[in-house]
Amino acid sequence: MTITFEPIGVIHSPHKGVEGTPIQPSRAEGAIGTIELLPEYADWLVDLDGFSHIILLYHFHKSPGPRPRVIPFLDTEERGLFATRSPCRPNPIGLSIVELLKVERNLLTVKGIDTLDGTPVLDIKPYVSEFDHRPDVRCGWFELNRSQTNVADSRFK
Amino acid sequence: MTITFEPIGVIHSPHKGVEGTPIQPSRAEGAIGTIELLPEYADWLVDLDGFSHIILLYHFHKSPGPRPRVIPFLDTEERGLFATRSPCRPNPIGLSIVELLKVERNLLTVKGIDTLDGTPVLDIKPYVSEFDHRPDVRCGWFELNRSQTNVADSRFK
Repeated sequence: MTITFEPIGVIHSPHKGVEGTPIQPSRAEGAIGTIELLPEYADWLVDLDGFSHIILLYHFHKSPGPRPRVIPFLDTEERGLFATRSPCRPNPIGLSIVELLKVERNLLTVKGIDTLDGTPVLDIKPYVSEFDHRPDVRCGWFELNRSQTNVADSRFK
Repeated sequence: MTITFEPIGVIHSPHKGVEGTPIQPSRAEGAIGTIELLPEYADWLVDLDGFSHIILLYHFHKSPGPRPRVIPFLDTEERGLFATRSPCRPNPIGLSIVELLKVERNLLTVKGIDTLDGTPVLDIKPYVSEFDHRPDVRCGWFELNRSQTNVADSRFK
């Protein structure tokens, strides 16, 4: 079974190449980006400005392809792909939670953008605390804090 | 531009029909589900058991199709689609954060499942507090608490 999607827009970001792109919004130092949806979606954005944060789903369009195991940017050991946020996924869908600064027609200005310039957007969802915040979680290898890097290198290029 | 994905597995859940299915994991009263990945992905799940919660991305395979505005289950007024979590999205990708109870080969047992039985899985990501928790957020119309329903009716059937 094949599922096909069409991008609903594109992300404009200051990050022009894989190397040096922040690995997550939490490490993007407030980088500002613009999400340009297709003009026909302007009307679909009504009410979104009431939310301070949005969940961006996008296509990891520069993913080098699926890999069963990777060494994540924040670790020094190989981990199973599904235990990481690496782009090398069977279905290369990226997820970032960013702050929504402004909605103007089909344009969204966001803070904390960690995606490459030109990234195709698949979906936008409002961030809702009741749904999306889980307190008291265990975060596996991530808690080992083996690497403190904030930006990508060439390993997934 | 068309982006093509193949499901990596299927969700087995106690929710057999749209009506009565929980609208979110936070309202699923601990419902237990099993995510059955294709056997070849067993090796890709290594290290995931260190995480207490996972982010499920899946295909809203029963979505009735895109609609620019909907009345969400938790409101009584029409809202722009992108300000809701309704399945009626241009790219019908669903997102649920569920508790991970067990990983056994290619099978994941999860708690708080809110998807229909038979839902195709697109991706699994570890829930990482630093990336996925945003404190001090505004949640727009959701904060009005106009409806307290926990389960879906037929409006998006």
